[in-house]
Amino acid sequence: MDAFNLTDHPHRRFNQLTGEWVLVSPHRAKRPWQGQEENINKEQRPEYDPTCYLCPTNVRANGAKNPDYPATFVFENDFGALQETTPGGNYELGGLLKAESERGISKVICFSPRHDLTLADMEVADIRKVVDLWQQEYEELGRLDFINYVQIFENKGAVMGCSNPHPHGQIWAQSSVPNEPAKETEQQTRYYTQHHRSLLQDYLELELKERTRVVYENAAFAVLVPFWAVWPFETIVISKRHFQHIGQMTQEEKDAFADAIKQITAIYDKVFNVSFPYSAGIHQQPTDGQEHPEWHFHMHFFPPLLRSASIKKFMVGYEMLGSPQRDITPETSAERLKSLL
Amino acid sequence: MDAFNLTDHPHRRFNQLTGEWVLVSPHRAKRPWQGQEENINKEQRPEYDPTCYLCPTNVRANGAKNPDYPATFVFENDFGALQETTPGGNYELGGLLKAESERGISKVICFSPRHDLTLADMEVADIRKVVDLWQQEYEELGRLDFINYVQIFENKGAVMGCSNPHPHGQIWAQSSVPNEPAKETEQQTRYYTQHHRSLLQDYLELELKERTRVVYENAAFAVLVPFWAVWPFETIVISKRHFQHIGQMTQEEKDAFADAIKQITAIYDKVFNVSFPYSAGIHQQPTDGQEHPEWHFHMHFFPPLLRSASIKKFMVGYEMLGSPQRDITPETSAERLKSLL
Ligand SMILES: O=P(O)(O)O[C@H]1O[C@H](CO)[C@@H](O)[C@H](O)[C@H]1O
Ligand SMILES: O=P(O)(O)O[C@H]1O[C@H](CO)[C@@H](O)[C@H](O)[C@H]1O
Repeated sequence: MDAFNLTDHPHRRFNQLTGEWVLVSPHRAKRPWQGQEENINKEQRPEYDPTCYLCPTNVRANGAKNPDYPATFVFENDFGALQETTPGGNYELGGLLKAESERGISKVICFSPRHDLTLADMEVADIRKVVDLWQQEYEELGRLDFINYVQIFENKGAVMGCSNPHPHGQIWAQSSVPNEPAKETEQQTRYYTQHHRSLLQDYLELELKERTRVVYENAAFAVLVPFWAVWPFETIVISKRHFQHIGQMTQEEKDAFADAIKQITAIYDKVFNVSFPYSAGIHQQPTDGQEHPEWHFHMHFFPPLLRSASIKKFMVGYEMLGSPQRDITPETSAERLKSLL
Repeated sequence: MDAFNLTDHPHRRFNQLTGEWVLVSPHRAKRPWQGQEENINKEQRPEYDPTCYLCPTNVRANGAKNPDYPATFVFENDFGALQETTPGGNYELGGLLKAESERGISKVICFSPRHDLTLADMEVADIRKVVDLWQQEYEELGRLDFINYVQIFENKGAVMGCSNPHPHGQIWAQSSVPNEPAKETEQQTRYYTQHHRSLLQDYLELELKERTRVVYENAAFAVLVPFWAVWPFETIVISKRHFQHIGQMTQEEKDAFADAIKQITAIYDKVFNVSFPYSAGIHQQPTDGQEHPEWHFHMHFFPPLLRSASIKKFMVGYEMLGSPQRDITPETSAERLKSLL
């Protein structure tokens, strides 16, 4: 019997940010596939689509007309999951049924007037304009009394439930802190209390020494496959400086952040030679008016593709009822991504 | 401004079993859909498929030949995520990279020799044989020293990553307790310590009084849409008697459990007039040799379909980075399911 090692043997890894585990089954990458394949849309899109509700000058379902925007454009979601007008209140029954009103604001951000682009295709200077808008929105929304958390994210690709290929993301800002950032607050607080240092700063230092999982770095950011990655080609973008939220980014850091996003999305598109679907989003400190020295700004990329443009990883039975599971190791994924830089 | 109510206003609900929240946006059920539609396979399958590696008498990839089984058939997964031969050990770096060897056993259970059936199509008496096998496997696997948790589950349908339509489920038995049952242990323990009663027993009593979310009940089990359901038509099957695991089920309870499974899966198939995809599985006490008076046996059904046979709910951007989100309320779903009984 061989000695235990991470390359050959099933094991679980601890996610320092959430306090949860992922099951890794490296030996399993070779199993045959007979399941569902996704339809990958390789159709060329026009620069402007008259039927797209996100293209400049078009009219949306609620009758509003989009401006002829030259760069980015933000508006309140016409079918938002969160609404500003929600009355406060809660519901309780027998100590076991517990609900609370959730007031918030849902916005849509167009990344570009061009219908045919994605972040991966855009110039760094244009991605920088998206970063500027994220910064502005985080600050404006976060300043509102009833907004205690601002979730900035993007769903890219039909496989990720994206209903319009026009390059865009969303912001859901709300009165409570959602599950995932709440877990990250807890884990980061625990570490900060114990070490008086940021968890992600120490983690990043370690990864930059190891280098096995680092995919890209510039002056202000590093992109890596986290040791505890769940999705086959999951990455995390971590700021080298320890700051809490996008509002604190300098001009140089905003440029570097745009560059990091450009690099990783462009790499993704080369993995299977297809516009790579993903969900991505920023985690940063709650806007609850409290000090959060423990928080360290970062962005997650969760791409579902596993073996090819049409074969994704399914997070189903065992994953829903037990723990997330992966076959290919984070180290192998990082090597693959790095080779495509 | 109306007073807050669960039918009209965005709110979050607390999941008593996991300690996490779900965002509910009832007003949003009406938004238009322009996203991906699933291919729904309506092809008639033969009773026996010579190319299926699960059909009786066929040869599997590793050369083993399936017996001519008349009812159920269980074997070790030829490409299991967990392996019995995994050497013990762990990995640690800088207090931040943490991994542990995970030893276990992965099995496949064929529910029927008939390639063309699903649990929904099977006779209750034949589902009862599946329940008997689950019971036997739970007991045998749980008795092994290195097995501390036994996860019994089924992925049904290509949308749920199921790679073979032959009716079958899986068992992943392992040395550590996965995330979800670990959370449920914690929540149930907290309640049991405080009230000296099972959390689910009190919850079930309350639901049987309310009746708004109960879909079906027989002498020993109730099927309901939990107050904190995440998936559009998610249900939970709860035993009326407080027991910890399937090994403690009486003959009558096993019959009743088979009946409950038959009813809910048959109802599902009527929702959109299609063989309803889902992931389902049993949660029960860890086989770690400890007493678990807090544990209450139950089964979860997580079906992804939302609006039609081809439109599913996507748990993507906000859900991955924030909290799960649903549009249609659990009460509306329960009403719909109940009407199809
Ligand atoms: O073992 P199967 O059926 O081939 O695989 C399926 O179920 C597993 C357990 O939920 C998942 O890890 C896989 O992603 C899924 O495709
Ligand atoms: O708002 P969209 O893009 O229509 O919807 C998409 O993203 C949302 C936020 O992640 C999800 O809740 C939806 O299931 C998904 O289809």
